Amino acid sequence: MAVMKVHGNPFSTSTHRVLACLYEKDVEFQFINVDMGAGQHKSDNFLPLNPFGQVPAFEEGDLKLFESRAITQYISQEYNDKGTQLLLPGSNKTMAVLQLWKEVEAHHFNPPSTKLVFELHYKPIFGMAIDTVVVEESEAELAKVLDVYEARLAQSKYLACDHFTLADLHHLPNVQYLIGSSAKKLFDSRPHVSAWVVDITARPAWSKVLDMQKQKL
Amino acid sequence: MAVMKVHGNPFSTSTHRVLACLYEKDVEFQFINVDMGAGQHKSDNFLPLNPFGQVPAFEEGDLKLFESRAITQYISQEYNDKGTQLLLPGSNKTMAVLQLWKEVEAHHFNPPSTKLVFELHYKPIFGMAIDTVVVEESEAELAKVLDVYEARLAQSKYLACDHFTLADLHHLPNVQYLIGSSAKKLFDSRPHVSAWVVDITARPAWSKVLDMQKQKL
Ligand SMILES: N[C@@H](CCC(=O)N[C@@H](CS)C(=O)NCC(=O)O)C(=O)O
Ligand SMILES: N[C@@H](CCC(=O)N[C@@H](CS)C(=O)NCC(=O)O)C(=O)O
Repeated sequence: MAVMKVHGNPFSTSTHRVLACLYEKDVEFQFINVDMGAGQHKSDNFLPLNPFGQVPAFEEGDLKLFESRAITQYISQEYNDKGTQLLLPGSNKTMAVLQLWKEVEAHHFNPPSTKLVFELHYKPIFGMAIDTVVVEESEAELAKVLDVYEARLAQSKYLACDHFTLADLHHLPNVQYLIGSSAKKLFDSRPHVSAWVVDITARPAWSKVLDMQKQKL
Repeated sequence: MAVMKVHGNPFSTSTHRVLACLYEKDVEFQFINVDMGAGQHKSDNFLPLNPFGQVPAFEEGDLKLFESRAITQYISQEYNDKGTQLLLPGSNKTMAVLQLWKEVEAHHFNPPSTKLVFELHYKPIFGMAIDTVVVEESEAELAKVLDVYEARLAQSKYLACDHFTLADLHHLPNVQYLIGSSAKKLFDSRPHVSAWVVDITARPAWSKVLDMQKQKL
Protein backbone atom coordinates (compact mmCIF):
# COMPACT_ATOMS: atom_id res chain seq x y z
CA MET A 1 0.00 0.00 0.00
CA ALA A 2 1.33 3.42 -1.00
CA VAL A 3 2.19 5.78 1.86
CA MET A 4 -0.38 8.49 2.54
CA LYS A 5 0.80 12.03 1.84
CA VAL A 6 -0.81 15.11 3.36
CA HIS A 7 0.06 18.45 1.81
CA GLY A 8 -0.84 21.06 4.38
CA ASN A 9 0.14 23.86 6.67
CA PRO A 10 0.69 23.52 10.42
CA PHE A 11 -1.47 26.63 11.11
CA SER A 12 -4.43 25.71 8.88
CA THR A 13 -7.61 24.49 10.59
CA SER A 14 -8.57 22.26 7.65
CA THR A 15 -5.14 20.62 7.81
CA HIS A 16 -5.62 20.04 11.56
CA ARG A 17 -8.87 18.19 10.84
CA VAL A 18 -7.03 15.67 8.67
CA LEU A 19 -4.06 15.35 11.04
CA ALA A 20 -6.39 14.69 14.00
CA CYS A 21 -7.98 11.87 12.03
CA LEU A 22 -4.63 10.33 11.04
CA TYR A 23 -3.38 10.37 14.65
CA GLU A 24 -6.67 8.85 15.91
CA LYS A 25 -6.34 6.05 13.35
CA ASP A 26 -2.67 5.60 14.28
CA VAL A 27 -1.61 5.19 10.66
CA GLU A 28 1.65 6.20 9.04
CA PHE A 29 1.74 9.23 6.78
CA GLN A 30 4.07 11.78 5.32
CA PHE A 31 3.46 15.49 5.94
CA ILE A 32 4.46 17.86 3.16
CA ASN A 33 4.59 21.48 4.23
CA VAL A 34 2.92 23.97 1.89
CA ASP A 35 4.46 27.40 2.41
CA MET A 36 1.36 29.57 2.19
CA GLY A 37 3.29 32.75 2.97
CA ALA A 38 5.22 32.14 -0.26
CA GLY A 39 1.95 31.43 -2.12
CA GLN A 40 2.83 27.78 -2.77
CA HIS A 41 -0.88 26.81 -2.55
CA LYS A 42 -1.56 28.87 -5.69
CA SER A 43 1.42 27.49 -7.65
CA ASP A 44 1.32 25.34 -10.78
CA ASN A 45 2.74 22.46 -8.75
CA PHE A 46 -0.03 22.57 -6.19
CA LEU A 47 -3.15 23.34 -8.26
CA PRO A 48 -3.34 19.82 -9.80
CA LEU A 49 -3.69 18.56 -6.20
CA ASN A 50 -6.47 21.01 -5.34
CA PRO A 51 -7.92 23.21 -8.09
CA PHE A 52 -9.25 25.63 -5.45
CA GLY A 53 -5.68 26.37 -4.36
CA GLN A 54 -6.30 25.49 -0.72
CA VAL A 55 -4.78 23.15 1.82
CA PRO A 56 -5.05 20.33 2.63
CA ALA A 57 -4.57 17.97 -0.30
CA PHE A 58 -4.08 14.22 0.01
CA GLU A 59 -2.46 11.46 -2.03
CA GLU A 60 -2.31 7.71 -1.66
CA GLY A 61 -0.87 6.11 -4.78
CA ASP A 62 -3.22 7.06 -7.64
CA LEU A 63 -5.89 8.46 -5.35
CA LYS A 64 -5.83 12.24 -5.10
CA LEU A 65 -8.28 13.99 -2.79
CA PHE A 66 -8.92 17.41 -1.33
CA GLU A 67 -11.61 18.79 1.04
CA SER A 68 -10.69 17.93 4.61
CA ARG A 69 -13.97 16.14 5.43
CA ALA A 70 -13.80 13.92 2.33
CA ILE A 71 -10.25 12.96 3.36
CA THR A 72 -11.24 12.09 6.96
CA GLN A 73 -14.16 10.00 5.71
CA TYR A 74 -11.89 8.06 3.35
CA ILE A 75 -9.23 7.41 6.01
CA SER A 76 -11.86 6.32 8.56
CA GLN A 77 -13.38 3.85 6.11
CA GLU A 78 -10.18 2.53 4.56
CA TYR A 79 -8.49 2.06 7.95
CA ASN A 80 -11.67 0.99 9.72
CA ASP A 81 -9.89 -1.68 11.78
CA LYS A 82 -7.04 0.54 12.99
CA GLY A 83 -6.94 2.91 15.98
CA THR A 84 -10.08 4.72 17.14
CA GLN A 85 -13.40 3.73 15.54
CA LEU A 86 -14.54 7.09 14.13
CA LEU A 87 -17.60 5.86 12.24
CA LEU A 88 -20.87 4.29 13.33
CA PRO A 89 -20.84 1.05 11.41
CA GLY A 90 -24.01 -0.96 11.53
CA SER A 91 -27.25 -0.23 9.76
CA ASN A 92 -27.94 2.53 7.25
CA LYS A 93 -30.00 4.10 10.03
CA THR A 94 -27.08 4.43 12.49
CA MET A 95 -24.84 5.76 9.71
CA ALA A 96 -27.55 8.31 8.84
CA VAL A 97 -27.44 9.71 12.37
CA LEU A 98 -23.66 10.20 12.10
CA GLN A 99 -24.13 11.81 8.70
CA LEU A 100 -26.75 14.16 10.15
CA TRP A 101 -24.37 15.50 12.83
CA LYS A 102 -21.55 15.82 10.29
CA GLU A 103 -23.91 17.95 8.20
CA VAL A 104 -24.77 20.06 11.25
CA GLU A 105 -21.06 20.79 11.77
CA ALA A 106 -20.61 21.68 8.09
CA HIS A 107 -23.73 23.83 7.63
CA HIS A 108 -24.41 25.30 11.08
CA PHE A 109 -21.24 25.24 13.19
CA ASN A 110 -18.58 25.83 10.55
CA PRO A 111 -19.78 29.09 8.93
CA PRO A 112 -20.02 31.31 12.06
CA SER A 113 -17.09 29.62 13.84
CA THR A 114 -14.82 30.06 10.81
CA LYS A 115 -15.67 33.78 10.70
CA LEU A 116 -14.88 34.07 14.42
CA VAL A 117 -11.56 32.21 14.06
CA PHE A 118 -10.59 34.63 11.31
CA GLU A 119 -11.58 37.72 13.33
CA LEU A 120 -10.37 36.66 16.78
CA HIS A 121 -7.40 34.39 16.05
CA TYR A 122 -5.82 35.18 12.67
CA LYS A 123 -6.48 38.93 12.37
CA PRO A 124 -4.60 39.83 15.59
CA ILE A 125 -1.64 37.69 14.42
CA PHE A 126 -1.49 39.62 11.14
CA GLY A 127 -2.05 42.98 12.86
CA MET A 128 -5.42 43.45 11.13
CA ALA A 129 -8.33 45.29 12.75
CA ILE A 130 -11.16 43.13 14.12
CA ASP A 131 -14.59 43.81 12.60
CA THR A 132 -16.81 44.02 15.69
CA VAL A 133 -20.04 43.80 13.69
CA VAL A 134 -18.96 40.47 12.17
CA VAL A 135 -17.92 39.25 15.63
CA GLU A 136 -21.27 40.17 17.18
CA GLU A 137 -23.34 38.63 14.39
CA SER A 138 -21.27 35.45 14.29
CA GLU A 139 -21.34 35.06 18.06
CA ALA A 140 -25.14 35.39 18.05
CA GLU A 141 -25.37 32.80 15.26
CA LEU A 142 -22.98 30.41 17.00
CA ALA A 143 -24.83 30.81 20.32
CA LYS A 144 -28.02 29.47 18.71
CA VAL A 145 -26.14 26.50 17.29
CA LEU A 146 -24.59 25.76 20.69
CA ASP A 147 -28.06 25.84 22.27
CA VAL A 148 -28.98 22.92 20.01
CA TYR A 149 -25.70 21.17 20.97
CA GLU A 150 -26.40 21.71 24.68
CA ALA A 151 -29.76 19.93 24.34
CA ARG A 152 -28.22 17.12 22.26
CA LEU A 153 -25.25 16.58 24.60
CA ALA A 154 -27.59 16.38 27.60
CA GLN A 155 -28.94 13.20 25.99
CA SER A 156 -25.90 11.73 24.27
CA LYS A 157 -22.27 11.78 25.43
CA TYR A 158 -21.05 12.75 21.95
CA LEU A 159 -22.92 14.30 19.04
CA ALA A 160 -23.76 11.20 17.01
CA CYS A 161 -23.80 8.55 19.74
CA ASP A 162 -22.09 7.52 22.99
CA HIS A 163 -18.63 7.33 21.46
CA PHE A 164 -16.37 9.92 19.80
CA THR A 165 -16.83 10.00 16.01
CA LEU A 166 -15.89 12.11 13.00
CA ALA A 167 -18.88 14.34 13.84
CA ASP A 168 -17.06 15.47 17.01
CA LEU A 169 -13.57 15.42 15.50
CA HIS A 170 -14.51 17.83 12.70
CA HIS A 171 -15.16 20.53 15.33
CA LEU A 172 -11.73 20.38 16.97
CA PRO A 173 -9.76 22.91 14.88
CA ASN A 174 -12.22 25.80 15.27
CA VAL A 175 -13.10 24.91 18.87
CA GLN A 176 -9.40 24.96 19.82
CA TYR A 177 -8.82 28.47 18.46
CA LEU A 178 -12.09 29.81 19.89
CA ILE A 179 -11.46 28.62 23.45
CA GLY A 180 -8.26 30.66 23.26
CA SER A 181 -10.28 33.79 22.36
CA SER A 182 -13.02 35.99 23.80
CA ALA A 183 -15.58 33.61 22.25
CA LYS A 184 -14.70 31.06 24.97
CA LYS A 185 -17.68 32.33 26.99
CA LEU A 186 -20.07 30.78 24.44
CA PHE A 187 -18.77 27.31 25.33
CA ASP A 188 -18.24 27.90 29.07
CA SER A 189 -21.79 29.09 29.66
CA ARG A 190 -23.28 25.77 28.50
CA PRO A 191 -22.42 22.92 30.90
CA HIS A 192 -22.78 19.95 28.53
CA VAL A 193 -21.03 21.77 25.67
CA SER A 194 -18.28 22.79 28.05
CA ALA A 195 -17.73 19.20 29.30
CA TRP A 196 -17.67 17.98 25.68
CA VAL A 197 -15.07 20.61 24.74
CA VAL A 198 -12.85 19.62 27.69
CA ASP A 199 -13.19 15.97 26.70
CA ILE A 200 -12.51 16.22 22.96
CA THR A 201 -9.62 18.72 23.24
CA ALA A 202 -7.90 16.41 25.78
CA ARG A 203 -7.64 13.48 23.38
CA PRO A 204 -4.03 12.26 22.92
CA ALA A 205 -4.38 12.38 19.12
CA TRP A 206 -5.35 16.05 19.31
CA SER A 207 -2.36 16.80 21.58
CA LYS A 208 -0.15 15.45 18.81
CA VAL A 209 -1.64 17.98 16.38
CA LEU A 210 -0.99 20.79 18.87
CA ASP A 211 2.58 19.56 19.45
CA MET A 212 3.23 19.62 15.74
CA GLN A 213 2.17 23.29 15.60
CA LYS A 214 4.45 24.17 18.51
CA GLN A 215 7.44 22.61 16.77
CA LYS A 216 6.83 24.92 13.79
CA LEU A 217 6.54 28.09 15.86
CA MET B 1 -41.33 -0.97 6.36
CA ALA B 2 -42.79 2.30 7.63
CA VAL B 3 -43.73 4.86 4.98
CA MET B 4 -41.25 7.71 4.55
CA LYS B 5 -42.55 11.13 5.56
CA VAL B 6 -41.05 14.38 4.30
CA HIS B 7 -42.02 17.55 6.13
CA GLY B 8 -41.21 20.39 3.79
CA ASN B 9 -42.29 23.35 1.76
CA PRO B 10 -42.83 23.32 -2.02
CA PHE B 11 -40.79 26.55 -2.42
CA SER B 12 -37.79 25.53 -0.29
CA THR B 13 -34.58 24.58 -2.07
CA SER B 14 -33.53 22.14 0.65
CA THR B 15 -36.91 20.41 0.35
CA HIS B 16 -36.43 20.17 -3.44
CA ARG B 17 -33.10 18.37 -2.87
CA VAL B 18 -34.84 15.61 -0.93
CA LEU B 19 -37.81 15.38 -3.34
CA ALA B 20 -35.48 15.06 -6.35
CA CYS B 21 -33.78 12.13 -4.63
CA LEU B 22 -37.07 10.41 -3.77
CA TYR B 23 -38.32 10.72 -7.36
CA GLU B 24 -34.99 9.43 -8.75
CA LYS B 25 -35.20 6.41 -6.44
CA ASP B 26 -38.86 5.91 -7.41
CA VAL B 27 -39.91 5.16 -3.83
CA GLU B 28 -43.21 5.93 -2.13
CA PHE B 29 -43.38 8.74 0.37
CA GLN B 30 -45.81 11.06 2.06
CA PHE B 31 -45.33 14.83 1.77
CA ILE B 32 -46.42 16.92 4.74
CA ASN B 33 -46.66 20.61 3.99
CA VAL B 34 -45.07 22.94 6.54
CA ASP B 35 -46.73 26.36 6.31
CA MET B 36 -43.70 28.60 6.73
CA GLY B 37 -45.74 31.77 6.20
CA ALA B 38 -47.64 30.83 9.36
CA GLY B 39 -44.34 30.06 11.15
CA GLN B 40 -45.11 26.34 11.50
CA HIS B 41 -41.36 25.52 11.21
CA LYS B 42 -40.74 27.32 14.52
CA SER B 43 -43.69 25.69 16.34
CA ASP B 44 -43.52 23.28 19.28
CA ASN B 45 -44.84 20.53 17.00
CA PHE B 46 -42.05 20.95 14.46
CA LEU B 47 -38.96 21.66 16.60
CA PRO B 48 -38.64 18.03 17.82
CA LEU B 49 -38.27 17.09 14.13
CA ASN B 50 -35.56 19.71 13.49
CA PRO B 51 -34.18 21.70 16.43
CA PHE B 52 -32.94 24.39 13.99
CA GLY B 53 -36.55 25.10 12.96
CA GLN B 54 -35.89 24.55 9.27
CA VAL B 55 -37.35 22.39 6.53
CA PRO B 56 -36.99 19.65 5.48
CA ALA B 57 -37.39 17.04 8.19
CA PHE B 58 -37.75 13.31 7.56
CA GLU B 59 -39.26 10.33 9.36
CA GLU B 60 -39.29 6.62 8.66
CA GLY B 61 -40.66 4.72 11.62
CA ASP B 62 -38.36 5.49 14.55
CA LEU B 63 -35.73 7.17 12.39
CA LYS B 64 -35.92 10.96 12.48
CA LEU B 65 -33.53 13.00 10.34
CA PHE B 66 -32.99 16.54 9.18
CA GLU B 67 -30.35 18.24 6.94
CA SER B 68 -31.27 17.63 3.30
CA ARG B 69 -27.93 16.03 2.34
CA ALA B 70 -28.02 13.55 5.23
CA ILE B 71 -31.54 12.56 4.12
CA THR B 72 -30.54 12.05 0.46
CA GLN B 73 -27.54 9.94 1.53
CA TYR B 74 -29.74 7.74 3.71
CA ILE B 75 -32.38 7.24 0.99
CA SER B 76 -29.71 6.46 -1.64
CA GLN B 77 -28.11 3.83 0.60
CA GLU B 78 -31.25 2.27 2.03
CA TYR B 79 -32.94 2.03 -1.39
CA ASN B 80 -29.72 1.25 -3.25
CA ASP B 81 -31.43 -1.31 -5.53
CA LYS B 82 -34.35 0.91 -6.55
CA GLY B 83 -34.54 3.53 -9.34
CA THR B 84 -31.45 5.53 -10.32
CA GLN B 85 -28.10 4.51 -8.81
CA LEU B 86 -27.07 7.78 -7.12
CA LEU B 87 -23.96 6.50 -5.34
CA LEU B 88 -20.64 5.15 -6.53
CA PRO B 89 -20.55 1.75 -4.89
CA GLY B 90 -17.32 -0.15 -5.19
CA SER B 91 -14.13 0.56 -3.37
CA ASN B 92 -13.51 3.12 -0.63
CA LYS B 93 -11.51 4.99 -3.27
CA THR B 94 -14.44 5.43 -5.68
CA MET B 95 -16.71 6.44 -2.80
CA ALA B 96 -14.09 8.99 -1.72
CA VAL B 97 -14.26 10.70 -5.10
CA LEU B 98 -18.05 11.02 -4.81
CA GLN B 99 -17.63 12.34 -1.27
CA LEU B 100 -15.10 14.91 -2.51
CA TRP B 101 -17.52 16.39 -5.06
CA LYS B 102 -20.35 16.38 -2.51
CA GLU B 103 -18.05 18.40 -0.24
CA VAL B 104 -17.27 20.81 -3.09
CA GLU B 105 -21.00 21.44 -3.55
CA ALA B 106 -21.48 21.99 0.19
CA HIS B 107 -18.45 24.21 0.85
CA HIS B 108 -17.81 25.99 -2.46
CA PHE B 109 -20.98 26.02 -4.58
CA ASN B 110 -23.66 26.27 -1.90
CA PRO B 111 -22.56 29.42 0.00
CA PRO B 112 -22.40 31.91 -2.93
CA SER B 113 -25.27 30.29 -4.86
CA THR B 114 -27.55 30.39 -1.80
CA LYS B 115 -26.84 34.11 -1.35
CA LEU B 116 -27.64 34.70 -5.04
CA VAL B 117 -30.88 32.69 -4.85
CA PHE B 118 -31.93 34.83 -1.90
CA GLU B 119 -31.05 38.11 -3.64
CA LEU B 120 -32.22 37.32 -7.17
CA HIS B 121 -35.12 34.89 -6.66
CA TYR B 122 -36.72 35.33 -3.23
CA LYS B 123 -36.20 39.06 -2.59
CA PRO B 124 -38.10 40.18 -5.71
CA ILE B 125 -41.00 37.85 -4.76
CA PHE B 126 -41.22 39.46 -1.32
CA GLY B 127 -40.78 42.97 -2.72
CA MET B 128 -37.43 43.41 -0.96
CA ALA B 129 -34.57 45.50 -2.40
CA ILE B 130 -31.68 43.55 -3.95
CA ASP B 131 -28.26 44.23 -2.39
CA THR B 132 -26.08 44.79 -5.44
CA VAL B 133 -22.83 44.49 -3.45
CA VAL B 134 -23.79 41.01 -2.25
CA VAL B 135 -24.79 40.06 -5.80
CA GLU B 136 -21.47 41.23 -7.25
CA GLU B 137 -19.36 39.54 -4.61
CA SER B 138 -21.30 36.28 -4.79
CA GLU B 139 -21.22 36.22 -8.59
CA ALA B 140 -17.44 36.67 -8.52
CA GLU B 141 -17.10 33.87 -5.97
CA LEU B 142 -19.42 31.56 -7.92
CA ALA B 143 -17.59 32.30 -11.19
CA LYS B 144 -14.35 30.94 -9.69
CA VAL B 145 -16.13 27.78 -8.55
CA LEU B 146 -17.64 27.31 -12.01
CA ASP B 147 -14.18 27.62 -13.57
CA VAL B 148 -13.17 24.56 -11.57
CA TYR B 149 -16.38 22.79 -12.68
CA GLU B 150 -15.70 23.67 -16.33
CA ALA B 151 -12.29 21.97 -16.15
CA ARG B 152 -13.73 18.95 -14.32
CA LEU B 153 -16.69 18.53 -16.71
CA ALA B 154 -14.35 18.67 -19.70
CA GLN B 155 -12.89 15.40 -18.37
CA SER B 156 -15.87 13.68 -16.80
CA LYS B 157 -19.51 13.71 -17.94
CA TYR B 158 -20.76 14.34 -14.38
CA LEU B 159 -18.92 15.68 -11.36
CA ALA B 160 -17.99 12.45 -9.61
CA CYS B 161 -17.86 10.05 -12.57
CA ASP B 162 -19.54 9.25 -15.89
CA HIS B 163 -22.99 8.82 -14.38
CA PHE B 164 -25.33 11.17 -12.51
CA THR B 165 -24.87 10.92 -8.73
CA LEU B 166 -25.88 12.73 -5.56
CA ALA B 167 -22.96 15.13 -6.19
CA ASP B 168 -24.82 16.47 -9.25
CA LEU B 169 -28.31 16.17 -7.75
CA HIS B 170 -27.45 18.36 -4.75
CA HIS B 171 -26.88 21.31 -7.12
CA LEU B 172 -30.31 21.18 -8.79
CA PRO B 173 -32.37 23.45 -6.49
CA ASN B 174 -30.00 26.45 -6.61
CA VAL B 175 -29.10 25.90 -10.28
CA GLN B 176 -32.80 25.90 -11.24
CA TYR B 177 -33.50 29.27 -9.58
CA LEU B 178 -30.28 30.83 -10.87
CA ILE B 179 -30.86 29.93 -14.53
CA GLY B 180 -34.14 31.84 -14.17
CA SER B 181 -32.23 34.94 -13.00
CA SER B 182 -29.57 37.37 -14.24
CA ALA B 183 -26.93 34.94 -12.90
CA LYS B 184 -27.75 32.62 -15.83
CA LYS B 185 -24.78 34.14 -17.72
CA LEU B 186 -22.36 32.47 -15.31
CA PHE B 187 -23.52 29.05 -16.50
CA ASP B 188 -24.08 29.94 -20.18
CA SER B 189 -20.56 31.30 -20.67
CA ARG B 190 -18.96 27.94 -19.78
CA PRO B 191 -19.74 25.27 -22.43
CA HIS B 192 -19.27 22.14 -20.32
CA VAL B 193 -21.07 23.64 -17.33
CA SER B 194 -23.87 24.76 -19.62
CA ALA B 195 -24.30 21.27 -21.16
CA TRP B 196 -24.30 19.75 -17.66
CA VAL B 197 -27.00 22.20 -16.50
CA VAL B 198 -29.18 21.39 -19.53
CA ASP B 199 -28.71 17.68 -18.86
CA ILE B 200 -29.40 17.59 -15.13
CA THR B 201 -32.37 19.99 -15.19
CA ALA B 202 -34.02 17.86 -17.92
CA ARG B 203 -34.19 14.73 -15.78
CA PRO B 204 -37.74 13.36 -15.44
CA ALA B 205 -37.39 13.15 -11.64
CA TRP B 206 -36.55 16.86 -11.51
CA SER B 207 -39.57 17.70 -13.70
CA LYS B 208 -41.74 16.04 -11.07
CA VAL B 209 -40.32 18.39 -8.43
CA LEU B 210 -41.08 21.39 -10.65
CA ASP B 211 -44.61 20.09 -11.36
CA MET B 212 -45.24 19.81 -7.64
CA GLN B 213 -44.32 23.48 -7.19
CA LYS B 214 -46.62 24.55 -10.01
CA GLN B 215 -49.55 22.73 -8.40
CA LYS B 216 -49.02 24.79 -5.25
CA LEU B 217 -48.85 28.15 -7.04
N1 LIG C 1 -13.51 23.24 2.62
C1 LIG C 1 -12.07 23.16 2.59
C2 LIG C 1 -11.49 24.46 3.12
C3 LIG C 1 -10.01 24.56 2.90
C4 LIG C 1 -9.47 25.92 3.33
O1 LIG C 1 -10.24 26.88 3.50
N2 LIG C 1 -8.13 26.00 3.49
C5 LIG C 1 -7.51 27.25 3.87
C6 LIG C 1 -6.56 27.02 5.05
S1 LIG C 1 -7.46 26.44 6.48
C7 LIG C 1 -6.72 27.76 2.70
O2 LIG C 1 -6.00 27.01 2.04
N3 LIG C 1 -6.84 29.06 2.40
C8 LIG C 1 -6.15 29.71 1.34
C9 LIG C 1 -7.08 30.20 0.26
O3 LIG C 1 -8.31 29.96 0.33
O4 LIG C 1 -6.58 30.83 -0.67
C10 LIG C 1 -11.58 21.97 3.41
O5 LIG C 1 -12.30 21.60 4.35
O6 LIG C 1 -10.53 21.39 3.10
N1 LIG D 1 -28.62 22.84 5.75
C1 LIG D 1 -30.06 22.72 5.77
C2 LIG D 1 -30.69 24.03 5.36
C3 LIG D 1 -32.17 24.06 5.58
C4 LIG D 1 -32.76 25.43 5.26
O1 LIG D 1 -32.03 26.43 5.16
N2 LIG D 1 -34.09 25.47 5.09
C5 LIG D 1 -34.76 26.73 4.82
C6 LIG D 1 -35.69 26.58 3.63
S1 LIG D 1 -34.79 26.16 2.16
C7 LIG D 1 -35.58 27.12 6.05
O2 LIG D 1 -36.27 26.30 6.65
N3 LIG D 1 -35.49 28.39 6.44
C8 LIG D 1 -36.20 28.92 7.57
C9 LIG D 1 -35.28 29.34 8.68
O3 LIG D 1 -34.05 29.15 8.59
O4 LIG D 1 -35.81 29.89 9.66
C10 LIG D 1 -30.50 21.59 4.84
O5 LIG D 1 -29.77 21.33 3.87
O6 LIG D 1 -31.53 20.94 5.10
